Parts: sequence; C-alpha cells; structure tokens
Amino acid sequence: MTEPVSSQSLVIDNIGLLVTNDPALGRGPLGIVSNASVVIVDGKVASVGPAGAVADQCIDADQACVLPGFVDSHTHLVFAGDRSEEFTARMAGSPYDGGGIRTTTYATRNTPTDELDRLVRLRLLEAHRAGTTTIEIKSGYGLNVADEARSLQIAKAHTPESTFLGAHLLPAEFEGRSDDYIHLVCGEMLHAAAPNAKWVDAFCETGAFDVDQCQAVLDAGRAAGLGLRLHGNQLGHGPGVQLAVECGCASVDHCTYLTDHDIAALAGSDTVATFLPAADFSTRQPYPDARRVIDAGVTVALASNCNPGSSYTTSISFCIALAVRDMHMTIDEAIQAVTVGGAAALRRDDVGRLTPGSAGHAVILDAPTYHHLAYRPGVPLIRHTIGPLGT
Amino acid sequence: MTEPVSSQSLVIDNIGLLVTNDPALGRGPLGIVSNASVVIVDGKVASVGPAGAVADQCIDADQACVLPGFVDSHTHLVFAGDRSEEFTARMAGSPYDGGGIRTTTYATRNTPTDELDRLVRLRLLEAHRAGTTTIEIKSGYGLNVADEARSLQIAKAHTPESTFLGAHLLPAEFEGRSDDYIHLVCGEMLHAAAPNAKWVDAFCETGAFDVDQCQAVLDAGRAAGLGLRLHGNQLGHGPGVQLAVECGCASVDHCTYLTDHDIAALAGSDTVATFLPAADFSTRQPYPDARRVIDAGVTVALASNCNPGSSYTTSISFCIALAVRDMHMTIDEAIQAVTVGGAAALRRDDVGRLTPGSAGHAVILDAPTYHHLAYRPGVPLIRHTIGPLGT
Repeated sequence: MTEPVSSQSLVIDNIGLLVTNDPALGRGPLGIVSNASVVIVDGKVASVGPAGAVADQCIDADQACVLPGFVDSHTHLVFAGDRSEEFTARMAGSPYDGGGIRTTTYATRNTPTDELDRLVRLRLLEAHRAGTTTIEIKSGYGLNVADEARSLQIAKAHTPESTFLGAHLLPAEFEGRSDDYIHLVCGEMLHAAAPNAKWVDAFCETGAFDVDQCQAVLDAGRAAGLGLRLHGNQLGHGPGVQLAVECGCASVDHCTYLTDHDIAALAGSDTVATFLPAADFSTRQPYPDARRVIDAGVTVALASNCNPGSSYTTSISFCIALAVRDMHMTIDEAIQAVTVGGAAALRRDDVGRLTPGSAGHAVILDAPTYHHLAYRPGVPLIRHTIGPLGT
Repeated sequence: MTEPVSSQSLVIDNIGLLVTNDPALGRGPLGIVSNASVVIVDGKVASVGPAGAVADQCIDADQACVLPGFVDSHTHLVFAGDRSEEFTARMAGSPYDGGGIRTTTYATRNTPTDELDRLVRLRLLEAHRAGTTTIEIKSGYGLNVADEARSLQIAKAHTPESTFLGAHLLPAEFEGRSDDYIHLVCGEMLHAAAPNAKWVDAFCETGAFDVDQCQAVLDAGRAAGLGLRLHGNQLGHGPGVQLAVECGCASVDHCTYLTDHDIAALAGSDTVATFLPAADFSTRQPYPDARRVIDAGVTVALASNCNPGSSYTTSISFCIALAVRDMHMTIDEAIQAVTVGGAAALRRDDVGRLTPGSAGHAVILDAPTYHHLAYRPGVPLIRHTIGPLGT
C-alpha cells in the first residue's frame, strides 16, 4: 500500500492508456489519454499530460492502463463470524431470505472491539489491494444501541463514508414488534450512532421493513443531519425506489425489480441506481436489467455489497465482469459505474476521476487496457493501488 | 514461488483443515483432516499427520485450509496478441464462432520464439500464484508444421503435459480444403510435433472439424505414441463424446450439449468429462448440466481453458465459483474436479492429492475452509503455492 503523498510530488509516468473520466481531457466519455502521465501533489492530481513529466517520486506504469481508484459505495464490513456453511447450503437449494443476518449479529455483538476493528482492517486491506480507494461502510450487525454505535465508531475510524443501518433486519428480541424496533432506531439508536455516521440507510423489502417504517428512518436520519440512502427492490417489486426518489436519497441500491414507473422516477431524479451483482451471483438471484435503466438516462453505480451473507467479496473487478457478462453493460459503462458512478452515489465529485484538483487515487493494471477487467475474469489485475483507502 | 525441495524436508504445519483426497486418511470423499501437518521430502509427501511434525523447513499455515495444488488439465497458453476488442464486441452482441483463432494464429506465427516463451512464462507465473501446480498446455495457434512444432517445444519446456492440437481450426490458407489440412496434420505436422507432445487433441465441432477428420487425427496420434483427448459438444449436440469414448480418450472437454446416450457412454468408460465454465462465461454460452453428468457416475474435471479468445483466465478459483453457482456442483465436487478430477483427465495419480508418495504440491488458502473459494468470488485466496508449476 502506498501511503498518502504529502508535501511531495509523485508522477505516474509512462501510462499506456489513462482513464480520466473527463471528456475534456481525452477521448470519449471516459476521457482516455494515451501515453500519459499524472502528477500528484499533496494527494491531489496536479496535472494530466503526456508521458515524461517530472516529480520527486516516479512510478513507471510500463505502458499499462491506469484508472481512477474504485469507489465502492456499498459495503457492510463491520461484522464477525463466518457464514460459509449457510452459503454452501443455499447453493444446495436453501432459499435466501436474509435470515442469516441474525447469525452475524450474534457473532458481531459477541466480538471484542479490538478484534472487530482488526477484521475490518483486514477486509480494507483486501479491498485496497483490489483497487478500491474510497469505500462506504454500513453498520447493521449490531442492531442494538450499543453495538450500532460501536460499529459506526469502527467504520468512521476508517472512512468518512459511514452509514447507520440500524434498520437492516429486525433483531430476534423484537420479533413481532417491528414498530417498536423502528421507534428505537429513530430515537435512541440514531442518537448514539449519528455522531459517527454521514448517512442513514434502511432495508425496504418484504421480510425486512415496510415503506412507512423506512420513511420514518429516513426522516429521522435527515433530521439528525445525515444523508439518505436505501436498499430497495432486491427480491421483488416494491415501493423502495419511489420512496428513495421522493426522499431525495443519494442512492437506492439493488434495483433488480423495477417497473417503468420506477425507472421514470429515477431518471427524473438525482438518485443513483446502484447495482450489486455479486450479491445476485452469490444468492442465485436474477441480475438487474441494467440496459433498461441506463438507456432511460439513470445514473448508475456498481458496488461490491461486501457482507458475509449474500456477497462476501471485495472485488470490484469481479463486479465489472458480471456487469458486462450478465447485465449487458458495456465495459465503458461498467468502468464509469465503479468510479464516477460510485462517487455520484456518495454525492462526491472529488473522487472517481483523475482530473486536476481531484484526489490522487489511481490503480495501475497488469493489463494494457481496462477491457481486461472483464476479459480476464478472476485474474487479480490490480498491480498497484495509489492512495489511502477510505478517503 | 517456492522452489522444489530436494534432499531437504519441509513441513506444512498448523493446518486448520487439510484436504488429502484420500478417504482412508480423513473424513468424507475429500479425506479431510483437521489440525494437520504434511511433511514433504524430495518433493513428495512423506507423511500426513497431526500438527506438530518436524522437518528442516517449516511453513506455518496458521490454521488456514490446505489443498492439493490445482491440476489445470486444459489450457492454450502458447499464443501472442490481444483479443480484448473481440471480447468487447462479443459482449456487445457479436456471436462466438471460433473465427478469431485466426487472429491469434497470425500474431503467434509472427512472434519470435524468445518472446513467445516469455509470454508463456508470464501466464504460468500467474497460474502458479493462483494455485495451479500441474498444467496441460496445447499448441494450436501455429497451424503449420514449423509453428506447431515450435509451440510444442515451448510447451514441453514448461510441462510434461503438452498437447498437439494442430486440428484446432482450419488455417486461412487451407480454406475449402479441410481434408488436405487434416492430411498435413496427420502426417508431416504430427511428425514434427510428436517429439515434444504427450497428447494429441482435436476440435470436433461444426465450424471446426468433423468426426471422420477428428478420428483420423486421433488414430494418427495414437500410432505416433500419443495419448488422446478431444474438444467436443461445446456449441451444439454432436459426435464428439461418442468418438472420444470409442477411441479411449483420457478426456473429452466442454460437454455442454449431451444426450442421454452421450452420458451413458461416458459413464461406461474411463473418459473424463472436463467442464470449462470460464469459456461459457466469456462467450455467454449455456453452462453444462454438471448434475446430470455427475449423478450418472461420470468422472468430471474442471479446467480453465485459458486462451485469448473464449476464456482468458488462469483462475481455477473462478472456475470453482462458476461451477458451484451456475453448474450446481457442490463445493466438494468442484474441489475434487480441480484436483483428482484434473489428474484423472491427464491419467495421473501422483498429483491432485496429498497422500504419502504423491507429489508435494499444495496451496495454502487465505481462508479457514475451501468453501471460501466459492463463497468469496473474485477474491485472490491463494496465500501460498508450494511446488513447481508444470510437473
């Protein structure tokens, strides 16, 4: 891992193919520049130009492809325990209903803070090696006041993009009393969580929370100064997308089951549709119809949804390969979705691009073009990740 | 990469979960031993026992899972050129008909031997980092006497499992004269290739070669002392599987379109059915119905089919994840298929297992169980590969 460069200049030189994501800097929507260099000063891009720029420190890309660091806008990294046996059972035919979240909640609550933090750091290192430089981390396996607050303290220590997801699933001790639980989430739990959260999120789905409950959580979160996001429309049609758009959520995540009305609502909004194909892979669910969403003009993101139940991967490259193969996104669209798309889902414009003034976060591939991220599935193609993770 | 241990003993100690593939040594068909150690002397397994064994050199597995090194029984590593644009076009809707092989043939013929060998070595290093310790390499991008012979010289320098695949596709200069080409393959080309080949293979498919042509190639290969293998039933129903069984091929590879008669023939034979799901992924073809084949009692293997056209991956872990998710193999079946299954497809019993006397080839995972190879798709979980690649 490269430490943040401070008061020193760094040049990534001899770049065969550079994705800037700024059409003013290069070709096409990805703003592609050939034979390029990127100079980074004090952690920010100072200039993008032809190869041969000079700086205090030089990384030779050896004609490889360089991209903005990936922005993973949806993860659940704060957890303990292992659910590989549940995964194996599901692959053998048991349905996915989210119920296993309680297994993780039990393990998370019963793990000391130091150990929980160590587990998060290991996952962050893994994500960083896989090219992620900005990451959102949700709580949601504490599901009581103390453990949600603790989860957000841990998340906040690693990233500014920390999300309070008390409304992840009903904890066992509130069985049959979901309104009581939502009352707790919107009151005492939010109060304890908010100091370490930037966002509030809720799981709007049959089996999780209904639209009124989610609305209450979003309203309370907004009142506490948090930005809004929502899980919706993963397992069937439902009101999630409409709620997200009405509330002005930055993103609504999953978006597998969408009506024309949902898509029209998204297209007329600033709400990003975030796809999580690795979850569809690991739960054998259908993939979202990305073409229909993109062709309607909706801004889309792709994220890992890293969590121990439905998507235990940190690999954005894997998400790209699935998006291209199974969701019929073009590789260019997939690259945008994991960079500027992820940034838009976090309402950020300082990451996900390599333009003067933006964060100096980049990945150098073991490949001449970014097409290889889909063309070479399963192969770890991230040679070098530049920039600290989480910022 | 760990060099082969010679006249020294090595212990892999503190193994949380060891897959031996010998039911006599441990639990279930995978012969699983908990809290184990494996002692390797002169490159061969000397003993399998409880943790705490002593040797000259020690690798601490730190309670991780240890498996036999993967046996990748189907690759086409000897090639030059890049076909990522063809891949991108195919993902955008162009059909896969194998025609792009000619692009690779042109590039391969026009690449100096040193450079071609360097490319093969890079791919082998990548495969080794991904856990492969035994690998088959085919020719098939030379398609003339000199370039097929050259490809096999390169392959043979890296692995004993080298395969003459002159009958890969009709080269452009033989357009309309496929029988003439097969005559060349069976005569002068085989003569030049055989000294560096262990196996002969042919592509029995509409658009490639018909059953009589493939039969001629197999007969000529056998007469030259080579073992037999076949590509068949990839793109549609056809006579490939029946031919393979009749000729006593060690393996017939792809096996996507099988009749009941094909499956019965395989079940009554020593011919392994080798699945190549990464090719189905990258060509958006249907996956084989592995359950039907396995439930009939056929021995199956999973291999990468690493090649620049239809499957540019070296990742056996990726193949395992696809086999479990999309082919409904159990994780135990998938593990067997990439170890003892691959070995059977190469008629080997010295690799693919960790039993006294077998090769000391092992992978140490960054995971407590082998389930993680499917549970954590896209994540590079091979912490350490022990044993030289290719043997």
